[in-house]
Amino acid sequence: MKIILIGANGTIGAAIEARFSGRHELIRANRTAGDVRVDIADPHSIRQLYRTVGTFDALICAAGQVQYEAFEKLTIEHHAIGIRSKLMGQVALVTEGLQFVNDAGSFTLTSGLTNEDPIRQGASSALVNGALEGYVRGAAIEMPRGIRINVVSPTLIEESVPVFGPYFPGVKPVPASEVALAYVKSVEGAQTGRVLRVGWSREQ
Amino acid sequence: MKIILIGANGTIGAAIEARFSGRHELIRANRTAGDVRVDIADPHSIRQLYRTVGTFDALICAAGQVQYEAFEKLTIEHHAIGIRSKLMGQVALVTEGLQFVNDAGSFTLTSGLTNEDPIRQGASSALVNGALEGYVRGAAIEMPRGIRINVVSPTLIEESVPVFGPYFPGVKPVPASEVALAYVKSVEGAQTGRVLRVGWSREQ
Repeated sequence: MKIILIGANGTIGAAIEARFSGRHELIRANRTAGDVRVDIADPHSIRQLYRTVGTFDALICAAGQVQYEAFEKLTIEHHAIGIRSKLMGQVALVTEGLQFVNDAGSFTLTSGLTNEDPIRQGASSALVNGALEGYVRGAAIEMPRGIRINVVSPTLIEESVPVFGPYFPGVKPVPASEVALAYVKSVEGAQTGRVLRVGWSREQ
Repeated sequence: MKIILIGANGTIGAAIEARFSGRHELIRANRTAGDVRVDIADPHSIRQLYRTVGTFDALICAAGQVQYEAFEKLTIEHHAIGIRSKLMGQVALVTEGLQFVNDAGSFTLTSGLTNEDPIRQGASSALVNGALEGYVRGAAIEMPRGIRINVVSPTLIEESVPVFGPYFPGVKPVPASEVALAYVKSVEGAQTGRVLRVGWSREQ
């Protein structure tokens, strides 16, 4: 399979690369490094990416920015950061990629647990992650040509504990290599419209 | 209680008004009618609303636009309509209202079932509804001064079947008067951070 991996130089991206490399043709895309450059917050950059790469079998996005901020300080402008990058950046990867993805191809996006298991300073992150889950469920039932779409929702990553650990009191981290398995399931499996949670489950 | 009701002239809004009127001081706000005018897609209009109304005990929003469109035709611009109105319009009502709401006051927003029970042409609606649910769960845990926030997620409304029925095959409608009960629970009850589903439940 020809797989585009956005955010290959991130913590999760590197673990995804390790899971797929050798077995598939991997095209690494990042803002500042990789086989091709892309800024997902910029729709023009996304269109340029697809014009450069051409047709593909799977797109994985493990990139996207969101603003963490105490609720009383959280402004509409703070929300706009996550909406432009992690939310609509990933949505635009789907919208613009639809004409380039092969039959029975797939899109795998990344959300996170905050929309169901909220944390302080995480209201904007929760908004974005909830939106991604809704979007993927909605998009999956209308995908043409057997194309699939899923979203991986990881808990706190072990490798990120030094930076993000204090934001997630009492959350058990999982290694990035375990999170990367969910991307393998999404790309090589047959499910669609699913939120693939890693390291946590939502309350019943 | 002094309650601001946005979207009072809508189907759900009218039913909410019937449930609250007589027992509370109700301020009706709409784009084109009511005690005050407000366009929730415009943050300036929201700030003007609060400057006019002053302090309050509860805000209910039963307004917000979103674009229904076949997935392959759905553009970033279509998504922007729902993001500006139903999503960030309701978020801005909270952000801007925080300095006007009394201690132990509440915000009650409106989403819908499409993020969990998807329909054709509903990917943008699903995105917006998922975002609202995530936001409310995230915001609730950081609300100051005992302020609460919930979101009502109604299924198809009986009164809307002539217009929206064809979009929701196999969905059992509920009367608006029943949906309005959830707003009473949110405003007069003590729960916070909850998605109050009316007429449907999510899969386990």
